[in-house]
Amino acid sequence: VTKDTTQRKELEDLQEDLREVQELLRRQHLVEVLVQRQDIPRDDQVESMAPKQHFAELRAKLDEMHAADVAYILEALPHEERLAVWDLVKAERDGEILLEVSDAVRETLIKSMDTEELVAATEQLDADEIADLAPDLPEEVIEDVFDSLPADEREQLREAMSYPEGSVGALMDFDPVSVRDDVTLEVVTRYLRRFDELPDNTDQIFVVDREDHLKGALPISKLIVSELDDPVSKIMGSDVVILYTDDNAQEAAQAFARYDLVSAAVVDAQGKLVGRVTVASVVDFMREQSETTALREGGLREEEDIFASVWDSVKNRWTWLAVNLVTAFIASRVIGAFEGSIAKLVALAALMPIVAGIGGNSGNQTTTMIVRAFALGQIQFDQARKLFRKELGVALLNGLLWGGILGLAAWWLYGSVQLGLVMTAAMTLNLMLAAIVGVMIPLAMVKLGRDPAIGSSVMLTACTDSGGFFIFLGLATLFLL
Amino acid sequence: VTKDTTQRKELEDLQEDLREVQELLRRQHLVEVLVQRQDIPRDDQVESMAPKQHFAELRAKLDEMHAADVAYILEALPHEERLAVWDLVKAERDGEILLEVSDAVRETLIKSMDTEELVAATEQLDADEIADLAPDLPEEVIEDVFDSLPADEREQLREAMSYPEGSVGALMDFDPVSVRDDVTLEVVTRYLRRFDELPDNTDQIFVVDREDHLKGALPISKLIVSELDDPVSKIMGSDVVILYTDDNAQEAAQAFARYDLVSAAVVDAQGKLVGRVTVASVVDFMREQSETTALREGGLREEEDIFASVWDSVKNRWTWLAVNLVTAFIASRVIGAFEGSIAKLVALAALMPIVAGIGGNSGNQTTTMIVRAFALGQIQFDQARKLFRKELGVALLNGLLWGGILGLAAWWLYGSVQLGLVMTAAMTLNLMLAAIVGVMIPLAMVKLGRDPAIGSSVMLTACTDSGGFFIFLGLATLFLL
Repeated sequence: VTKDTTQRKELEDLQEDLREVQELLRRQHLVEVLVQRQDIPRDDQVESMAPKQHFAELRAKLDEMHAADVAYILEALPHEERLAVWDLVKAERDGEILLEVSDAVRETLIKSMDTEELVAATEQLDADEIADLAPDLPEEVIEDVFDSLPADEREQLREAMSYPEGSVGALMDFDPVSVRDDVTLEVVTRYLRRFDELPDNTDQIFVVDREDHLKGALPISKLIVSELDDPVSKIMGSDVVILYTDDNAQEAAQAFARYDLVSAAVVDAQGKLVGRVTVASVVDFMREQSETTALREGGLREEEDIFASVWDSVKNRWTWLAVNLVTAFIASRVIGAFEGSIAKLVALAALMPIVAGIGGNSGNQTTTMIVRAFALGQIQFDQARKLFRKELGVALLNGLLWGGILGLAAWWLYGSVQLGLVMTAAMTLNLMLAAIVGVMIPLAMVKLGRDPAIGSSVMLTACTDSGGFFIFLGLATLFLL
Repeated sequence: VTKDTTQRKELEDLQEDLREVQELLRRQHLVEVLVQRQDIPRDDQVESMAPKQHFAELRAKLDEMHAADVAYILEALPHEERLAVWDLVKAERDGEILLEVSDAVRETLIKSMDTEELVAATEQLDADEIADLAPDLPEEVIEDVFDSLPADEREQLREAMSYPEGSVGALMDFDPVSVRDDVTLEVVTRYLRRFDELPDNTDQIFVVDREDHLKGALPISKLIVSELDDPVSKIMGSDVVILYTDDNAQEAAQAFARYDLVSAAVVDAQGKLVGRVTVASVVDFMREQSETTALREGGLREEEDIFASVWDSVKNRWTWLAVNLVTAFIASRVIGAFEGSIAKLVALAALMPIVAGIGGNSGNQTTTMIVRAFALGQIQFDQARKLFRKELGVALLNGLLWGGILGLAAWWLYGSVQLGLVMTAAMTLNLMLAAIVGVMIPLAMVKLGRDPAIGSSVMLTACTDSGGFFIFLGLATLFLL
């Protein structure tokens, strides 16, 4: 996919483009409305010309835009206008644009295409790109594409589709440029000249032996400054980051960030070069990761098209609400068990949410810090005791500080020293509970092989809510009634 | 900074290294304890040799590690061991390692160094790197470094330090390789051969005129496949992404992700080439951004060294707790205003946290979706009405659904149809309040030029808590008592 004929823009210019597209769509719509009102037959020369003019202008505009920018426009448009624009995009660009749009929007676009169009769009892509689209495509499309590919690409597609999501295999492409280690740079240069252009993100040529075993890499930045009669083996570096197809993509991404890589070789279990990972795919992967985490934490099952129907939104959000409803109901029953105490001392009802709420906030601070340290690989399990000690210390200090302030407030509001003391004690105990649970939950999730960033917060809040109500109402029942 | 002599590793191997370092430190410690116990004078040959052996081994290990990996080890070690390892790092690597460690850990390392050591460490860095470190360095160090630099680098440092955080100027380096547009590729190649190695992430040579105005770029991947007697102007692309020093770094990062860039030229207001941004710095920037957001959302003012002292942690966390305390206190006073009603019907106390809690969860779903759409630049203000309509629809449906279930539960638990109806109505109204506030808060924050990802959640929860209590207890007072 060449990008030279398309323009690249910064976000501001892109928003300008979006407004322009909307304006063209609006004018187009107006003309159509007028045509209908005047009841002039559709085949009349003048009226059927006018609408086409706006569309022609729009089509020209889309043609000169980069695929990623067309994707941006499609994502920012409401359903109907989105499909109108999609129809105007040149068929041969459908594939690359489908790759760029978000999952939710991709779904709406694919729904609007028939099998033939989808096969035509998909066929133009590389094997690793087809594999990325595959989960969203109808099965018969995949089969048709499969049949239409030449044998070697078919093999690549089969391979690409076999790697599980989140593995290096799923992240890599099949574009590594490689040379043998027993030739001179002169030969390498002549070989490279046979390309029209090197694949994107080619910052190094991989060096292999006769059996394709990876031996090292030849950075382009060195190749370009070296004498051409030097042998490859003299210039190449043998200290390269080597990834395996079944490595964790997350860890590969961390290696890219740590070592400022532009590309890295991927080898199979036998050490044979099978592909490469590029920084472009790593950047996309990182963005997806941090987005998924943000969505999950915010309670969305998957990313949501902002123009999704009410019904689609409800489906996307119900799991999280149901889980929270259950935990809230449990907390409510804890309070229910102390209704007798509340009836006797109604101030408890007003004060109890403070104890529960601050516990949740404090516990989330602990969990956030630990989740981050895990993401960076900095925590080992044998340090858990040290962490517990520190977090309990923080909780004790915070409990005495904020609990003390609230105790004074309760004393002042309700004129009861005992109530103030119970408030302070309950705050301190709930913050300590929050500290213990806030450390334990992420540790347990990592032990179970799950991502601690997702779900920790709900579980923690469930504990500190129910726990906070129980501690506060329990202490009040023991000491005040 | 050359990386060729150091080894690069994946996270697993790195954790192995960490364990090894800890083991060496532990042995070292044991030996020292033994020496002290036996009360043998320190200058005795055998005992002073033994400790040194472990240190020598450790030092050798550190020497062969990549700077980013040494940084990882330092971050994962508790305070005392961290400083022991830091002492063993070669002085000439101090600078690059300080650049790699997290802010919190950098602070502890800088505290352990005197002015002279800091000046020596800083001097070896590039101007843009010194500017990155500058906020953490004592002023006299900056001054000394400034005086010691040659004139051109001093000018660069002054420039680099003048750009505000979050601007492209602060992100860029001063390493762009440029050539004139009126020469042949032969000349370019000869010019490049004069470098030992091209700067990292050099995927294109920038083309400028006599006055350094940017004319285009010559991709290395094209240079390497072209005939050497072609002129630069024939091969160069003029459609390059051009950044300005005062552009927003966030938008520049988005351009890198959208267009799969490895480097981009930075020009000043006159169009003169002044620097370049690399994908490596963009990746670091993206990681920092997503981390900062996660930390802020989780209630930490800044990143926290997991081995920070209790007191440092308390300081890092108090703002957030104080804010939440205030909002919780306000919600508590809302309940306090209805104490008469609760005293008459104590079931209200048990049910009210459900109404408030689910409102907060649902509103956060709305806010999360909108914050994400803003981050991708997909929302325009004229679409706000559409969004309100959709979110109110979702809230109405969810309110009737979940409110209905809870109404039935309340009826079943307390045997009162009216209580059930009030529960359902309160849930529906609070979810609709959450939808309105959940859309309005991020929109307002963007209007005010603030990052909607930070702080929206606290404000929203404050509204849905106080609002939820008020709606539920208010309806109950009106219809049940």
